[in-house]
Amino acid sequence: MSLRTSIAGVAALAAQALAVELTTFGFPDCANGPLKDNLVCDGSASPRDRAAALVNELTLEEKFNNTGNTSPGVPRLGIPAYQWWNEALHGVAFTLPGKPMTDSGNFSYATSFPQPILMGAAFDDELIYDVASVISTEARAFSNGGRSGLDYWTPNINPYKDPRWGRGQETPGEDPFHLASYVQNLIRGLEGDQGDPYKKIVATCKHFTGYDIENWNGNFRYQFDAQISMQDMVEYYMPPFQACAREAKVGAFMCSYNAVNGVPTCADPWLLQTVLREHWGWDQEDQWVVGDCDAIQNVYLPHEWAATREQAVADTLKAGTDLNCGTYYPKYLPGAYEQGLINDTDLNRALTRTYASLVKLGYFDSAEDQPYRQIGWSDVNTQHAQELALKAAREGIVLLKNDGLLPLSLDAISSIALIGSWANATEQMQGNYYGIPPYLHSPLYAAQQLGVTVNYAEGTSQDNPTTDDWGAEYDAAAKSDVIIVVGGIDNDVESEGLDRLALAWSGPQLDMITRLASYGKPVVVVQMGAGQLDSTPLVANANISALLWAGYPGQDGGVALFDVITGVAPPAGRLPITQYPARYTSQIPMTDMSLRPSASSPGRTYKWYNGTAVFPFGFGLHYTNFSAEVTAGPDGQSFAIADLIASCSSNQTTTTPKLDLCPFTALSVAITNTGPLPSSDFVALAFLTGSFGPAPHPRASLVAYQRLHDVALNATAPSVATLNLTLGSLARVDESGDKVLYPGDYAVVVDVPEAPLARVEFRLTGEEEGVVIERWPRLDEGSRVGEGVVNVPEGYYEGGFGSRNGGDDGVGQGQEVLGVGS
Amino acid sequence: MSLRTSIAGVAALAAQALAVELTTFGFPDCANGPLKDNLVCDGSASPRDRAAALVNELTLEEKFNNTGNTSPGVPRLGIPAYQWWNEALHGVAFTLPGKPMTDSGNFSYATSFPQPILMGAAFDDELIYDVASVISTEARAFSNGGRSGLDYWTPNINPYKDPRWGRGQETPGEDPFHLASYVQNLIRGLEGDQGDPYKKIVATCKHFTGYDIENWNGNFRYQFDAQISMQDMVEYYMPPFQACAREAKVGAFMCSYNAVNGVPTCADPWLLQTVLREHWGWDQEDQWVVGDCDAIQNVYLPHEWAATREQAVADTLKAGTDLNCGTYYPKYLPGAYEQGLINDTDLNRALTRTYASLVKLGYFDSAEDQPYRQIGWSDVNTQHAQELALKAAREGIVLLKNDGLLPLSLDAISSIALIGSWANATEQMQGNYYGIPPYLHSPLYAAQQLGVTVNYAEGTSQDNPTTDDWGAEYDAAAKSDVIIVVGGIDNDVESEGLDRLALAWSGPQLDMITRLASYGKPVVVVQMGAGQLDSTPLVANANISALLWAGYPGQDGGVALFDVITGVAPPAGRLPITQYPARYTSQIPMTDMSLRPSASSPGRTYKWYNGTAVFPFGFGLHYTNFSAEVTAGPDGQSFAIADLIASCSSNQTTTTPKLDLCPFTALSVAITNTGPLPSSDFVALAFLTGSFGPAPHPRASLVAYQRLHDVALNATAPSVATLNLTLGSLARVDESGDKVLYPGDYAVVVDVPEAPLARVEFRLTGEEEGVVIERWPRLDEGSRVGEGVVNVPEGYYEGGFGSRNGGDDGVGQGQEVLGVGS
Repeated sequence: MSLRTSIAGVAALAAQALAVELTTFGFPDCANGPLKDNLVCDGSASPRDRAAALVNELTLEEKFNNTGNTSPGVPRLGIPAYQWWNEALHGVAFTLPGKPMTDSGNFSYATSFPQPILMGAAFDDELIYDVASVISTEARAFSNGGRSGLDYWTPNINPYKDPRWGRGQETPGEDPFHLASYVQNLIRGLEGDQGDPYKKIVATCKHFTGYDIENWNGNFRYQFDAQISMQDMVEYYMPPFQACAREAKVGAFMCSYNAVNGVPTCADPWLLQTVLREHWGWDQEDQWVVGDCDAIQNVYLPHEWAATREQAVADTLKAGTDLNCGTYYPKYLPGAYEQGLINDTDLNRALTRTYASLVKLGYFDSAEDQPYRQIGWSDVNTQHAQELALKAAREGIVLLKNDGLLPLSLDAISSIALIGSWANATEQMQGNYYGIPPYLHSPLYAAQQLGVTVNYAEGTSQDNPTTDDWGAEYDAAAKSDVIIVVGGIDNDVESEGLDRLALAWSGPQLDMITRLASYGKPVVVVQMGAGQLDSTPLVANANISALLWAGYPGQDGGVALFDVITGVAPPAGRLPITQYPARYTSQIPMTDMSLRPSASSPGRTYKWYNGTAVFPFGFGLHYTNFSAEVTAGPDGQSFAIADLIASCSSNQTTTTPKLDLCPFTALSVAITNTGPLPSSDFVALAFLTGSFGPAPHPRASLVAYQRLHDVALNATAPSVATLNLTLGSLARVDESGDKVLYPGDYAVVVDVPEAPLARVEFRLTGEEEGVVIERWPRLDEGSRVGEGVVNVPEGYYEGGFGSRNGGDDGVGQGQEVLGVGS
Repeated sequence: MSLRTSIAGVAALAAQALAVELTTFGFPDCANGPLKDNLVCDGSASPRDRAAALVNELTLEEKFNNTGNTSPGVPRLGIPAYQWWNEALHGVAFTLPGKPMTDSGNFSYATSFPQPILMGAAFDDELIYDVASVISTEARAFSNGGRSGLDYWTPNINPYKDPRWGRGQETPGEDPFHLASYVQNLIRGLEGDQGDPYKKIVATCKHFTGYDIENWNGNFRYQFDAQISMQDMVEYYMPPFQACAREAKVGAFMCSYNAVNGVPTCADPWLLQTVLREHWGWDQEDQWVVGDCDAIQNVYLPHEWAATREQAVADTLKAGTDLNCGTYYPKYLPGAYEQGLINDTDLNRALTRTYASLVKLGYFDSAEDQPYRQIGWSDVNTQHAQELALKAAREGIVLLKNDGLLPLSLDAISSIALIGSWANATEQMQGNYYGIPPYLHSPLYAAQQLGVTVNYAEGTSQDNPTTDDWGAEYDAAAKSDVIIVVGGIDNDVESEGLDRLALAWSGPQLDMITRLASYGKPVVVVQMGAGQLDSTPLVANANISALLWAGYPGQDGGVALFDVITGVAPPAGRLPITQYPARYTSQIPMTDMSLRPSASSPGRTYKWYNGTAVFPFGFGLHYTNFSAEVTAGPDGQSFAIADLIASCSSNQTTTTPKLDLCPFTALSVAITNTGPLPSSDFVALAFLTGSFGPAPHPRASLVAYQRLHDVALNATAPSVATLNLTLGSLARVDESGDKVLYPGDYAVVVDVPEAPLARVEFRLTGEEEGVVIERWPRLDEGSRVGEGVVNVPEGYYEGGFGSRNGGDDGVGQGQEVLGVGS
């Protein structure tokens, strides 16, 4: 069979290629099996000791065989085959060799939540915990049904730095604090509480690190070398991973395809040992690192890091990559061992980690004693799960423009024209990494439940050059009272392996929308997809009444959308990413990893972008009005940095205090719904601003958020958001990567800095050079191995144009050339 | 239904969108129908008068309705619906609303030839004529069977300037002389001889002009503005179109999506009237221009050339675009007419041209009198057609490396490992724009006919990150005597809408090949696909015995490939394109349309590239050796330019002599097969070199070629190639676009300049400034209309990085950044 599928199906391709007979999952029989007298079956021993005892039983060949994702197990010892590659990005999705769902009946579906980018827009950490809890419950049900494994390669927590990134949809957004907070709640939901005797499932924080490019302009993820300053690394790329490792103590990490500053991440002991395991204390024996699928092969080619395949597997294993998605380990570790490039210690360490992880999951213990082993098919797609999938979609949808048409009153109309490439979306609503859901309620389905006539036409899509279909969409519009266009982008233009090239609405889609808007009828436009389209022409068009963004809303996405449009669920989502002008793509190459603006870059994210966003990060309108008042906080106060640190240190009991986590203050912000709506959610966002520390200064930094639910109109007891700030909230990162508290004038604004609802000011005092509250490991702390030369011609894999340092002249002149029509 | 197909399926998408009920084609009944007394039915009148009489009968509404590709006809007058959009790039392919083939039985298939890029590699004009004749015969059969139309939107004759171009596969290659010669033979085969009473079919030379980018880095074909100097335009972009118009007098042209120097081509009267119709004399009443699908819509958006949709259709109609693929004409011409932007003359001119074309096709004449109307299903897929499809594939395949393993002796082996993503290729072999063939003989099928054991494994492909499939390919290799890898690229990475990003073999594919090459067994690698991959690592690898390139070889591609490998059909194809080093993509952006090298460009094509090609244009090895001797030619002679022109002018009878076409000399080159093979084809290529005229000078220019068939070993009467040179062969193009003969020393070398077999030198004398033999129209000869402003924000459609003027700094530094592993 030929692999003639779209580039978007890379994961599926890999799944095909790696398909083996493994279609059911089982557990070893520790009661009566060959291992019953081995320590691994002794529930009273430590996971480390149990795993070590098992590994000690294995022959060399058995060890090598079990270093890849498709693990054959050890039949001799009654250890069944195990598939480490399971996915559950926003619901149980797939397990090699395919989806774990059956064709019908039990285990034929699982709840499909919105893509993380839309759940990120909810800014609701409790929601994330609830969603993750449902996912892990359903994952356990599939495991108990013999349909999937116990570890899942989720979440994707790389910050969504560039709107072109094809996998930005898999992330909660662009802000590192937001991601760090989100991911802690997610992992708690997936793995269970840290003190629990068993892990619910093992989550995998990926892709560590600096991974946010697919194939932009000849720069392929498999070979890209991300040039990242220590300042940007600590300030931007690392916080979600630090939260995974240090705070959430997640069970697994995945190193990425790309190199960082010259070293492929899976072969970088400084990254995997010095930073991850030592600096962040991610050092439990059951915590393991897996290489992204074929990333270890890529260390050989195209990275050309190792001179031989054996050297490549030796470099990665010794660096701390314990498991190989792929077969390079089982294939080439034997040769590496023979050549003396690895030894028993290297091999046993990796296997002990992965087997200890299975121990922590209860893999070797009897089912009866484990609550998670009692979960079954009846726990999948519960009423609660269904409601939660709908709630998550409702909460994420963002209102960007509204002239008063919304909430749409159904009393006044008898017909709706529902037009666009997403109007009848089903699988589209799931984005990528999806399984089979119980249902997919499209926008068309939802509209048809409203009791009005719905005139549907597909119209044109972002990747369709043709507006011309003899006008079904115009016919639909002509006979309807209201026109709703549900369009935008989908995985045809943003997906794994496929970065976007443009941020503008395509000519045909914009042509269709503006033509529809010229009918003199109310028009609502909904942009779907993760990457923002520059909606300037829609904002400027007075004939377009309302604009919403709805991401990839999952199994009940259509219903959620119409619940928001009609006011059943008033919108309160906030943009988790910046909506840049279309020209942004010609101002900075994707390969430029730097955040701060420079002569060759307008800067990245709301913190550093020096242009005017079409819609800023955090933006989101409501159907009602809100006011905010800070009822408790440090307004007007002054704090000595030395005092803050001393009081914090004394409150920490560990020998290595985490000063950045020390509480600084809690703001209490009373939020009042001033009408006209009787009730609406409201997301309280707190941004830190100020010119403390060295220039340049970020425009603002999100330091806290809380979603308030059902804020009632003029309630006598106002809803209060509690926004906790830590010393880390106040810190800046210096060029070494150290976090520093500087004296100066600080302010916290509530809501987006462009339209603040409240403001608090305070002062920190101390020495001008500031105080380091977290020292970042230096590159020479730990070592970098490897640096071989592969026998391909020098420069063979040189990448394309527009890479990081090449942006300067290419930009300004590029704009001139592409100016058209004048 | 959602348009969730790959971007490669753009044409198919458009086909869906435009689908109407039209599924059968018919002819008007001029004997008894309503028009029987109208002049259109009078076979003795001129096509122009007949068409004008019909147009005169039409109401305004009927006229507007019939300006789009899906023409409803005029039921009132007995004119049936007609679909102008038919495709036959390398065999009858599709006709809206889909493929014209039935599910089974009659008309269920048509012959599928190789993609033009492989037919171009044959350098065999007679072959091209023969192939085109079969295609037009089969097209007539489908037309007579009511399954397709009479005009076809083929050939794609834009020079294949950049190896990244996704549609380069549709063209014969990079050299303008080659394309001009090829296309004349093709059109004669498609349309019949120019003096014939009826056209066989109408061909359409596309895409006029400067179209050779799909979506590189934010520069989309629908909005790209190609900046082309007059010198490059005349020297490089125009020759194939000039040959179409002036020499072949093709029936139709298609203007392109892009703009050239600020003006969308479909809205450019200088291009469509001054150059095409006036300068080239393409002025017959039955010759029409169609806009590429939705290109007229694109004049409005995203080109923003016209301020309103009505202005867009007016600008294009008045510029000379007669037919609209799409519906902008039928939809917006009425408004344009009402607003006075067009008048009856504009509208009637367009319709008269398209209807006159149908007259020339015999559409209105009785079937009995027309030989083409007698063609039927029995004329499809004849033995001749089958043999020709095989022959075309055999002739195109190029041998790039051979250590003596090939031709492969089957006597010495008992088993072959056949490995790779193309090893069992079926539809892949057709590339794009294909129909349903009678069969698809894959390489695997062909190998299985050889009487040896074939061990097949798919292995990895160019877009598959995973090498790891537990080693089926290594198992196959281990138990075989010879390893043949058939891999490379396909429409997953190069296709309509999808330009390539890299020229290197992917890491996994290269890894697999080099691993297979370490087995100590003979290895043959076949690169499939149009765009060349930099094969430097394969050339340098002594364990790889042979390397071939086989493009997209069509229905019998597998058989052709093994015929070449085993010596049944010794290879004689020549690369029709340069194989650049992989780093080429980082040295010049696709958007740079200039040919000559500069500070920011290494130059383009074998004429101007200042680096060292991996394999040069024209390269191709044989299994035997050849010598060449020039037996007649101008060696050592001197010619006065004035004399050459005077003698030529006097031999031309027209009032506007085409001096560039005047014969200069014919070289006779005797080709001797010196063994060891008893017989082999040989392509005689003649390149002009010399430093005449202004610097910089091209390295060489192809001026003639001829394929000799079956050159026998040491034949007593050697095969003689006759290589005709014209004055145009000697001319240079100046900055105004004028063709000039300069005094100086000239040489013609036979075979690639890197390894010439023979050389002839001569001198031209005259004034230093030279003599213009073809004056190019100036931009102010004719006018450019339009230049409106569309109501979208300024710069909204600004394109991406790396556009033409932006290449400078981006290149050198980009290389450094992407250097890996050190």
